[in-house]
Amino acid sequence: YIQAEKELENTGIKLFKAAQIETPTYEQWILENLKEGQCIGFDGSVLSVSEVKKLQIMLDQKLIKIIKEYDLIDLIWHDRPQVPKNQIYIHDISFAGKSISEKLKELRMKMEEHHANFYLLSTLDDIAWLYNLRGNDVSNTPVFVSYALISMDKAWLFINEEKITVSVKKELEKYDVEIASYENIKTYLNRLEAGDIMALDPSKVNSMLKDSIGEECEIINIKNIVTNIKAIKNDVEIQNIKNCNIRDGVAMVKFLYWLDMNLENIKISEITGAEKLKEFRSEQKNFVDTSFATIGAYKEHAAMMHYKATPSSDYTLEKEGMFLVDSGGQYLDGTTDITRTIVLGTLNEEEKRDFTLVLKGHLALAKAKFLYGVTGTNLDVLARQPMWENGIDYKCGTGHGLGMMLSVHEAPQRFSVPYNDARLEKGMIITNEPGIYIEGKHGIRIENTLLIVEDETTEFGTFMKFEVISYCPIDIEGIKTSMLNSDEVKWINDYHKKVYNSLNEFLTEEEKIWLKDATREI
Amino acid sequence: YIQAEKELENTGIKLFKAAQIETPTYEQWILENLKEGQCIGFDGSVLSVSEVKKLQIMLDQKLIKIIKEYDLIDLIWHDRPQVPKNQIYIHDISFAGKSISEKLKELRMKMEEHHANFYLLSTLDDIAWLYNLRGNDVSNTPVFVSYALISMDKAWLFINEEKITVSVKKELEKYDVEIASYENIKTYLNRLEAGDIMALDPSKVNSMLKDSIGEECEIINIKNIVTNIKAIKNDVEIQNIKNCNIRDGVAMVKFLYWLDMNLENIKISEITGAEKLKEFRSEQKNFVDTSFATIGAYKEHAAMMHYKATPSSDYTLEKEGMFLVDSGGQYLDGTTDITRTIVLGTLNEEEKRDFTLVLKGHLALAKAKFLYGVTGTNLDVLARQPMWENGIDYKCGTGHGLGMMLSVHEAPQRFSVPYNDARLEKGMIITNEPGIYIEGKHGIRIENTLLIVEDETTEFGTFMKFEVISYCPIDIEGIKTSMLNSDEVKWINDYHKKVYNSLNEFLTEEEKIWLKDATREI
Repeated sequence: YIQAEKELENTGIKLFKAAQIETPTYEQWILENLKEGQCIGFDGSVLSVSEVKKLQIMLDQKLIKIIKEYDLIDLIWHDRPQVPKNQIYIHDISFAGKSISEKLKELRMKMEEHHANFYLLSTLDDIAWLYNLRGNDVSNTPVFVSYALISMDKAWLFINEEKITVSVKKELEKYDVEIASYENIKTYLNRLEAGDIMALDPSKVNSMLKDSIGEECEIINIKNIVTNIKAIKNDVEIQNIKNCNIRDGVAMVKFLYWLDMNLENIKISEITGAEKLKEFRSEQKNFVDTSFATIGAYKEHAAMMHYKATPSSDYTLEKEGMFLVDSGGQYLDGTTDITRTIVLGTLNEEEKRDFTLVLKGHLALAKAKFLYGVTGTNLDVLARQPMWENGIDYKCGTGHGLGMMLSVHEAPQRFSVPYNDARLEKGMIITNEPGIYIEGKHGIRIENTLLIVEDETTEFGTFMKFEVISYCPIDIEGIKTSMLNSDEVKWINDYHKKVYNSLNEFLTEEEKIWLKDATREI
Repeated sequence: YIQAEKELENTGIKLFKAAQIETPTYEQWILENLKEGQCIGFDGSVLSVSEVKKLQIMLDQKLIKIIKEYDLIDLIWHDRPQVPKNQIYIHDISFAGKSISEKLKELRMKMEEHHANFYLLSTLDDIAWLYNLRGNDVSNTPVFVSYALISMDKAWLFINEEKITVSVKKELEKYDVEIASYENIKTYLNRLEAGDIMALDPSKVNSMLKDSIGEECEIINIKNIVTNIKAIKNDVEIQNIKNCNIRDGVAMVKFLYWLDMNLENIKISEITGAEKLKEFRSEQKNFVDTSFATIGAYKEHAAMMHYKATPSSDYTLEKEGMFLVDSGGQYLDGTTDITRTIVLGTLNEEEKRDFTLVLKGHLALAKAKFLYGVTGTNLDVLARQPMWENGIDYKCGTGHGLGMMLSVHEAPQRFSVPYNDARLEKGMIITNEPGIYIEGKHGIRIENTLLIVEDETTEFGTFMKFEVISYCPIDIEGIKTSMLNSDEVKWINDYHKKVYNSLNEFLTEEEKIWLKDATREI
């Protein structure tokens, strides 16, 4: 919001801070501000079936009509970029762990449970996962523009055929996956007839697409099946993800060492720092891209949770304050996401207190043991409590799911105060990233990636816990040790030992010495 | 479940443990076990509109019909008790804090927001609260069998007219509340016509009642408005509730003292202990009744969360193990609910550990400071975490709302793992009662009642906290001090000081000395 307010200044556009108690939803705002009988237009292909339905129910109160057949922006945006035509490629089974046929079989079993004989998929990461393909249409996320349709014995991929190589075509044919042109999806949907039962997720499928389904075809609303299967990583994926997180940790440590050595010798800015970090990642095996635009935010810039430095905002790093770096990589064997807040000089009392509060929240969640069956909403408070005790809150979730060489934000699991209904399952990957953001002063976030594993089964049920799979020291200079209890101190020392032991063989002698010191006992 | 299994032994009735992951819901079970085209019958006046609708949607899959017009049990239950005809009485404004007209005004404002001109109320505690009346139809809960209907300028109470005294009649007339016979509700509802808009809570109004609403009347489904207004106690109610909790604490301490003095001298059992406690409560000003059947459970009986001693199960208390007493009172100025687990002899290591874990959970919740906007589901884990860390869970919520001389379980707020969507508001009352229940061994629960108050407002929002309003020592003999941190020790010492200072003036010299010792510093 801090950043949005700045960027919207003098544009005539008013900022509404979404999800805050005093802010109306856009539906409420429309309802309050439009007059009876007026008409609202939007492009129906950018709102989901559920969103349109919810809006229509509200607007019916004032007899407000919806027209959703036109994309007006398209008519006035003359140099609008084309939908990309980049080639797609096979995501090898040695990374994916499951063949297309295994995945289709699992999906079809779920379809049967719902008595559906067709399933429509429009979420790009789910399509990429299902067909073991990756692409280059979206920066930082290796998906490709497409739709998928699955019946009980066939499957289709709707895609611009220029993107398909011979090897991809061959591979898909092996599994009875037919390629059709992207625009053809509507024709196929329109052909569905009486007796067909189509399952779809109304919160994901766009309104226009649903409207093109044959009128006689029955539609069953379900939660996205593929999203839920994909969220539980298989053993091959888990091993891959662990491996790539170690290489990612090596890149992070090389960056931290480089920063420490060069801070006073060369000019390093938020932007050039981020570039250097990308360079270290790109030297690692299986590296494809960063998994999002690196957030390198110095001093008060870090109070903006999603700050992205521009040449005009770019700060040069100095030997003072804190530098927040939130970054990740796309590797063929996994997607990473890690944040470290790096102490560049001596901190004042408030900064040290806040750093330690964030750390306490981070540890409380990382250490949690919990009954199987709970969701991220049940656990979120563990991370937030040290801040709340001090009258501080961060205005975002505490953690999100993570893809496998896919989206860096993956559904359905999430640590958040607003209700998330996804059970935390063994094999899910989720981030742990509480923070403190003081406008105009500083921003602190400590983020590791967690793997959900089973702990023990007792007469009271099965208990779960988290395995930390990010490897990078947490800056000891930020910690006010007197605020930690002995369990917390032990956790940090154990973690740092694990970081050193996992990474040291991939480092130079100088980097090893540096890491030894950075992971020293507190 | 332990108790249910025992009671159902050899009856031919199979127990389904509701809300456990492996247990089907009754709807699922019916769907799986009935054949296509079969028909299921039940009394439509005992299932809500929502329950019937949900069931019908599921059963439609197998073309299973519902017949809900007959109460078959009534036809074969020859000595079925009559609906009681006890007189009702006015709950004085000095207790209630708000007049009927103020309450109706608030309700009508909410009705207007929903564009409704009628509101149907069938929840007995809401009706009693709205009309400032109390009755005697249900043991331990001072409600009376009735319905209420509210329009924008009139209100009706449908009730067996034998229950109405002259003073009640006069009082209701003052506020334009008309009395009609209980059975007449259907006739009134049937009269509603085109243009009328009836708001009702489909999860509370029974299916038969809704069916009797005039066909042309529009129905709006809403969450029970009165329940939500009633949950936020007004200042007069809060002061009353605090006062009655002090008297309740006096009764509790007199009981604990008596138990300590007499345990080795006279025969005290689970049942006679509970009777003695009721005697101490009944000596207190404004006492009306107990707020539920006291749970007095010794040793392994306490592992049954809702154990009720019968003459055949009744244990005699000895100088060993623990005695769990969960009890409460209905006073004209409030409803109380408190649990203490009393240490009668030396505990073993496991018992002491479990007692201390329960205490740690209890304290974690009692001490919580939290951002305004959260629900009981966000906070529940604080109480549960010390148990989870040790592979233990309790199979119930951590706390529930509490009435004002009404139901001891009051909606909507609740501490629970399953999602509860009620925001924790300033002025709400809620219990804090984690526990450990080891089948065949012991049961431990420590329950206090909490008032939600504001703590501070910072740049991050308004923060809330709890004020403990139960006054009774927690048995120090159960505590393994080495498991507590210094904050927890301080909390207990501060709480015990407050207990002593609040109660001592109402005690005899001997009781005072006893309480001084029971609240000594740890």
